[in-house]
This record gives sequence, C-alpha cells and structure tokens, in this order.
Amino acid sequence: MKMTDIILKKRHKEKLTKEEINFFVKGYVDGSIPDYQASALLMSIVFNGMDAEETSNLTMEMMNSGEVVDLSSIKGIKVDKHSTGGVGDKTSLVLGPMVSACGAKVAKMSGRGLGHTGGTLDKLESIPNMQIQINKEDFIKQVNEIGIAIIGQTADLVPADKKLYALRDVTGTVDCVPLIASSIMSKKLATGSDAICLDVKFGSGAFFEDAEDARVLAKAMVEIGKHMNRDTKALLTNMDQPLGKAIGNSLEVKEAIATLKGNGPSDLLELCLQAGSLMLVQAGVAKSKENAREKLIQTIKDGSALDKLASMIKAQHGDESYIYHPEKFNVAKNIIEIKSNKDGYIKRINALGLGEAAMKQGAGRATKEDLIDYDAGIIVERKCGDYINKGDVLAILHTNKDDYLTQVDEIRNAFIIGEEKGKIIPIVYDIVE
Amino acid sequence: MKMTDIILKKRHKEKLTKEEINFFVKGYVDGSIPDYQASALLMSIVFNGMDAEETSNLTMEMMNSGEVVDLSSIKGIKVDKHSTGGVGDKTSLVLGPMVSACGAKVAKMSGRGLGHTGGTLDKLESIPNMQIQINKEDFIKQVNEIGIAIIGQTADLVPADKKLYALRDVTGTVDCVPLIASSIMSKKLATGSDAICLDVKFGSGAFFEDAEDARVLAKAMVEIGKHMNRDTKALLTNMDQPLGKAIGNSLEVKEAIATLKGNGPSDLLELCLQAGSLMLVQAGVAKSKENAREKLIQTIKDGSALDKLASMIKAQHGDESYIYHPEKFNVAKNIIEIKSNKDGYIKRINALGLGEAAMKQGAGRATKEDLIDYDAGIIVERKCGDYINKGDVLAILHTNKDDYLTQVDEIRNAFIIGEEKGKIIPIVYDIVE
Repeated sequence: MKMTDIILKKRHKEKLTKEEINFFVKGYVDGSIPDYQASALLMSIVFNGMDAEETSNLTMEMMNSGEVVDLSSIKGIKVDKHSTGGVGDKTSLVLGPMVSACGAKVAKMSGRGLGHTGGTLDKLESIPNMQIQINKEDFIKQVNEIGIAIIGQTADLVPADKKLYALRDVTGTVDCVPLIASSIMSKKLATGSDAICLDVKFGSGAFFEDAEDARVLAKAMVEIGKHMNRDTKALLTNMDQPLGKAIGNSLEVKEAIATLKGNGPSDLLELCLQAGSLMLVQAGVAKSKENAREKLIQTIKDGSALDKLASMIKAQHGDESYIYHPEKFNVAKNIIEIKSNKDGYIKRINALGLGEAAMKQGAGRATKEDLIDYDAGIIVERKCGDYINKGDVLAILHTNKDDYLTQVDEIRNAFIIGEEKGKIIPIVYDIVE
Repeated sequence: MKMTDIILKKRHKEKLTKEEINFFVKGYVDGSIPDYQASALLMSIVFNGMDAEETSNLTMEMMNSGEVVDLSSIKGIKVDKHSTGGVGDKTSLVLGPMVSACGAKVAKMSGRGLGHTGGTLDKLESIPNMQIQINKEDFIKQVNEIGIAIIGQTADLVPADKKLYALRDVTGTVDCVPLIASSIMSKKLATGSDAICLDVKFGSGAFFEDAEDARVLAKAMVEIGKHMNRDTKALLTNMDQPLGKAIGNSLEVKEAIATLKGNGPSDLLELCLQAGSLMLVQAGVAKSKENAREKLIQTIKDGSALDKLASMIKAQHGDESYIYHPEKFNVAKNIIEIKSNKDGYIKRINALGLGEAAMKQGAGRATKEDLIDYDAGIIVERKCGDYINKGDVLAILHTNKDDYLTQVDEIRNAFIIGEEKGKIIPIVYDIVE
C-alpha cells in the first residue's frame, strides 16, 4: 500500500477502505508517513469529505492508536458527557453530581487544553488540595464506591489525535466535520464509557455560528457512536451568550454550587436538566425523559447532588468544606463594575470576547506554560433580552492585576445593545439522537 | 503574514495576492515554510485552482527563486521550444537546426530528468565527445556565431520548482494545470528566450489523454507568457502513437538526420514544419506561416539544416562526421523482429508501453543513477491506420541485453489491433496562440 495512492483516491472522491485508513493512522503515528503526506490527505478530506463508515473507521483507528480504558469492572452503565466548548461552561460540575445522585455511573476523564478559561480540571483545582491525577485502579474504585470521578486523561490516550490535531492547526484543516467528529469521538470512546451525551454548541462563542452546521457535526458523531455500538445522543445548545453568569475558575465552581442548591442561573439549570434527562435514560436509571427530569430536580431539592459533589471532592483529596461554605474561596483584589454607556436591549453577548478578556486577566492559558489565576474572571450581570439603562451594571470583573482598563472596554463592547428586543433562542435548541 | 492564513484563503477559494505568493515561494525555498504547509496549499490549489494572474505570479516568483539567464548579448529574437514530453520525441534535434538555418536564434537549455527514454541531452550524448555542459559565455558566443546551441541547465535555475516538484510527486498533486503550467513556464522563462513555442501532447503516451485537457494547459501557459511579455504559442499534438519510428537515443539521432535529409517519417516532419513555422514568425524571420514553411522545406532541400546540426555538434566538441555518416553509430548486438499474431488495423500504439519496454532494455533511466545504453531502443515499423497481416513485422527491438523476452511481449501488446480502421488524428491537432 502506498500513501500517495491513498491521497489520490481521496482527491478523486473515492471511499477509503478500513485497511487504507488503518495504514494511514498507524504510519502517521509511527512516523513512517511524513507530515507532508498527512496534510495532503487531510486537505483532500476537507474538500471531498468522508462518509459515515469512513469517519467511524478513522475514529476507531485513532482510538486504537493508544491505550483504551477498560471500565468493565465498574458495575452498571457508565455515562459520559462532552461539550464542544463554550464560555462559562461549568456543566460537568453540576450535571455530573446530579446524574450520579440518581444512580448513574459517571467515570469522566477530561483533557486540559488551551483556551479562554480553564477546563473542568482547572475549575476543580481551584478547590484546595483537589487531585485530578488519579491512577486507574483508584479511579475505578472511586466510581464503584461513590458513583462519580472526574480526573485528568492519562498521557497515552489517542496519540494519533494529538499528532493530527497539531498538524491540522498549522495546515488550515481544523474546521472539517469528519476530522472534528473523529477527534472528539476517538477520545470519548477511548475513555471507555458505555453511553455518551454530547453538548454541541453553536453561536458567536462556539465553533459553528449556525445551528444547522452544529447539527451536521452532531449527526456525524451520533453516527460514529452507532457504528461503534455506543449509545450516543447530542444536544444542540446556544452559545450566543455565556452559559450562566460566571466566567473564571473559582467563580464558576461557586456558580455550580449555587445551582446544585437551587439558586443557579436558569439557562445552566435547564441545560443540566435536559442533558441529565438524556443521560439517565441512557444509563437505564429512568424510564423516560420526563421521569428523569423529576428525579434530577429532586437531587437539588434534597441536597443529594450537592452531597455527591462534596463526596467526589473529598475522595480526590480536595477540601470539601468549600462546597458547603463557598465563601471560603479567595476573592480577587479588584472587583470592577462595568456599566453600560447606552440604553437598549441586549441582543447578543460576545461570549468569545468575554472569554478572551477573562483570559487576559489570568482566568485561562494563552500558552501551555501559563499559570491560571483561579480568582480571576467575569460575572455577567445582564443577559440577552434584558432592557438596559445607561449606567446599569453589565458585568463585574474580578482580577488580581492592576492593569485591566483595556479589558474593561473589551467587556463593555462584548454586550451588543440595540433598540429592539432580538429573538431569544432557548439554551437547548434541539436534540439529535 | 502567516502561511496558515494563505492556506485558508485558497481553501476558501479566494485569490492570492502577489505578496502572498512571494511569501510562500520564498519561504518554501529558504526552509522557513515546512513541507506540510506547502502540501496543504498545493492540495487547496488542486481543488480551487488559480486564475491567470495568480498562475503568472507563481511562475514569476518560481523563476526568480534562482538564476535567470540573461541572453540580451545575443543579437536578434531568441526562440525556444518545449515539449511536454512524448515517446520518440526527437523534435528539438530536427526543428532546432531547421529554424536556425533560416536565421532564428536558438539558445536552448534542456533539463535531464527521468523517463522512458533519454531526453534531448542524452540523445546528443550518443554522438562521441559531444559536450552538453558548456559555460554561459561559450554558450552565448556559440549562439551568436552559429545560431544554435543545446546545452544542459545550470544547477541553480528555478530551485523552487525542484523542491515543489519533488513534493508534488509524493503528495498526489502532480496533475493540476496551474502547477504544471507554472513549473514548465518558470523553467522556460528562466532560460531567457524572447519567444517560446510549446508542444503540448495528448493521447495515451502523454500526460493528458484528452485533447481538450491539453488545451486547458496550453492556454494557461500562453496566458502566463502574455502576462510576462514573452511571445508564447502552443501546438496541441497527438501522442496516440510514438512520434516517428525510432525510440532510443542513437536510433532517434539517426532518424533526426534522415529527416533533415528529407527521408524522415511524415509525422515528425509535419510537426517540425508546423512548430518551425510558428517559431520563424515569432522570431520575425518570416512574414507568415506559409512563407515560413517554404523556408523550412528549403533548408532540407539545400542541406543547410543538416549542416547546421553538424556545426552545432562540432562547436560542442562532438564528432560531426557521425552526422554525415550515421552508419558510424554503434548498432546493438541483438536485433529482434517482433511480428503480429493477428490480422487487422492498428488502432492505437501504446506509446508509453513501448517507452517503458525500451527503458527496460537500457534506453532510459528508471533511477537517476542508471546508465543509458545509447544503442538500445525500438523501431516502430507500422503505425496507426496500417493494415497488418499475421506475421508482419510490427517493430524491431535493438538491445545489447540477452534477457529481452518479456519486452518482446510488451512491445507486441502495445499494438492495439482491431477489425475496423479507427479515426486517424493528425499529428498537429490545433494551435493555441
């Protein structure tokens, strides 16, 4: 088999066989296929696509390029959730404990990655002593005992994705549905859960601006799940404004805690209830989405979800007293109110702009080496559809830096204010199953 | 400027600016742009093309990546001819002397390259002592004095093409009109002639099977010439059978000599007359193609073209007595007649198949290191449209090897014989100017 022939085949819009995809992934990981041939193939895939079978085969070969976690010693159906990434997305911290409190098993391995604000792992690490590097045996034991663990990925999961993603990043081949779908799904499948619930975001703060583009990606991933016999469902959710109110690590943990106490923002709660309903049905813990929703609401009412979060924190050596006393979290030195300079309705909130402003104040990493300031972030005080008077507080910046004036303007400009109340898109736009 | 942005621009079918093309070519040659980014851009060009201006800019930047030969000290209009490559193509050896004998200046630098049979330089080297590595001053002096020189390219012409061609070869990006056109034209323009006559071949032995595909390439190259103010014309010529009868180095030189004496195959003569007519008009030596054709025929009748070939050989230290006494050329040890095993009309002769059979017997190079056997080759005895009886000689193999049985079958199978006389396409199908 020759790599040039495989490139030419895809260039001429022919379907690649399982053997050809295996040859490519294996050869690329072991170095026998050079970057320049891989990038030519990737660009051909950008133009000529891959069908569901090719995408599934690519996903499977990528998954098998490294370690595949075996969770079979955890009793019951393990459910996992993955978001394509958004600003203020603390869903895992709320949803995981709720679902687990209902009896589903949540064995979640997260990646770290770069970004405007920290990932789930960084948010967890804002809790003193919290450990996210746990060995596999302890991980499995923890899920068996308390029903939930959220830990960092081990280094040897899906090396093909690490190498391919780095190449895609510098060759203009990032935004391509079969490549995105196989990248996400290979990692999810390698972490071993039986059922997967995907949160595919669209809007100004997401990868796809348009809901229908997000639907294409969601369908591709659900198809992969089907081919691989893993129950996979997806929600299409709106990122035309940050999720909830808090952006930044400890601020988001505090918002997650508030939500588990029944005092959280309505969009975050609704997303958790809808995603959680899917997951409980997938886990066989609830008969219907309606039944699942009732159970989930009950975990907030009776405090069992908050207790579940505290148990997980404790099991991972974190100080669980912070969960019951979130006032213990450190607060940033400077708390700056950012006020509107005009009247009108908030039509859109540039989530990405807020995320980047928060990052510049220390809430996220621009490079791998950057240290995160857990205190830093933004609280979004007003959301889309709200009427604003000049002088009203739009957001509050939390920062330990004294050099924040540029970000104050960036934050103000992220609020797009107009004369008419725009159309409000609900947080969950649709479900793909 | 960032290479990723340039790739994304072409991926999204936008037009690249002169500055962007310069950034790419310069960066690729100096190594600051890696192969994997270059191959992603090349594949984007395969899918989204380049317009005439982009192709011209790419050609110019490639040309300027190395030395550009200055022929201004040669008096008169210098005309050059380039063929996209065919089996049995000894045109330069016939056409050059004819055109030069009419008063046009031919200052030709050829590349060597791999291939089924040797290039023009290899054919010339079958004449004892012939020198094709001549320094620039002697080259210019020779063209000024006798009107013609055919020499090897110096090493530093168009390094961008060398590097890009090697990459295209292994990334499935060879057959792409703007890339082929810029590759050919950058080399032709770098060798400094004022006017260029292109022989773009189509058919089973050529790069493009179809005449209309060849026309697209021809038009792209003529357009580049226009943008660069170099008078460029192209012939579309038929390669559904080898050109002339001889394939192999000294065999082809002998056929060129015979043609210059008026005893050559009609297709080769016709091609030389039509290409030569264009060139003489381009050189300002003839007023019309008709007038040029008369002059060219006269150079055969009066022996001036043959003398011109001999003068060139002598000026380049070759033994010109071989031109007047071609019987002096060494003859291969084995001369094998290959006979038809059926009756019928020859519908097509697989030129590439014959070229490869000749190469295996030593007439060409499979790898750069291979030595050429100047005696080896094939004489095609019957051509398309001829009626053949079983037992008639189709071709004669000349070889110094004793292991030739496989090639005998290959040669026989290259003649496609059918019951009906197929449509005969003339050697010159059309002219693009």
